[in-house]
Amino acid sequence: MITEIAQIDVKPGMEADFEAGVRQAKPIFMRAKGCKGLALHRSIEKPARYRLMIQWETLENHTVDFRGSDDFKAWRACVGHCFATPPEVEHTNTVLS
Amino acid sequence: MITEIAQIDVKPGMEADFEAGVRQAKPIFMRAKGCKGLALHRSIEKPARYRLMIQWETLENHTVDFRGSDDFKAWRACVGHCFATPPEVEHTNTVLS
Repeated sequence: MITEIAQIDVKPGMEADFEAGVRQAKPIFMRAKGCKGLALHRSIEKPARYRLMIQWETLENHTVDFRGSDDFKAWRACVGHCFATPPEVEHTNTVLS
Repeated sequence: MITEIAQIDVKPGMEADFEAGVRQAKPIFMRAKGCKGLALHRSIEKPARYRLMIQWETLENHTVDFRGSDDFKAWRACVGHCFATPPEVEHTNTVLS
């Protein structure tokens, strides 16, 4: 199991729009191949910064299957207008939980 | 519920020491006031980068109670020698899960 961690800074004043966009897009992820769940976290210290954490069965389920799908465009259509900068995306393995 | 996200870069070659130190320190967190769980993630793209994610009942359980306790020193004694740079710590609220 892989966790994608996307750090997303949104434009000033777009926080509510962004959160609504992620809620709207949740079914897009839940039907994606290998997607096992997602959570959206909002920074307390930097309230325009979010971290979207998505569990995938494999790295390729995100980087190949999802990014190559029409649903990736649908996801970006929900939230892309809120991004202040391109998201910083990393993938992790869980060492301890 | 608050999630602390600590981004920790370890010195080259210290990955196994760091992981062992976190395992050793787990009981320190589990007995801390307000601590509800922790997970350690290791970056795939940058294998010397970890994210320690800890759930706290309140922000102050981390920033005041834990950081002011002797157990904070005990935690740092387990892993501090592995840090390449000071950890970057942020706290988040969960917006959607």
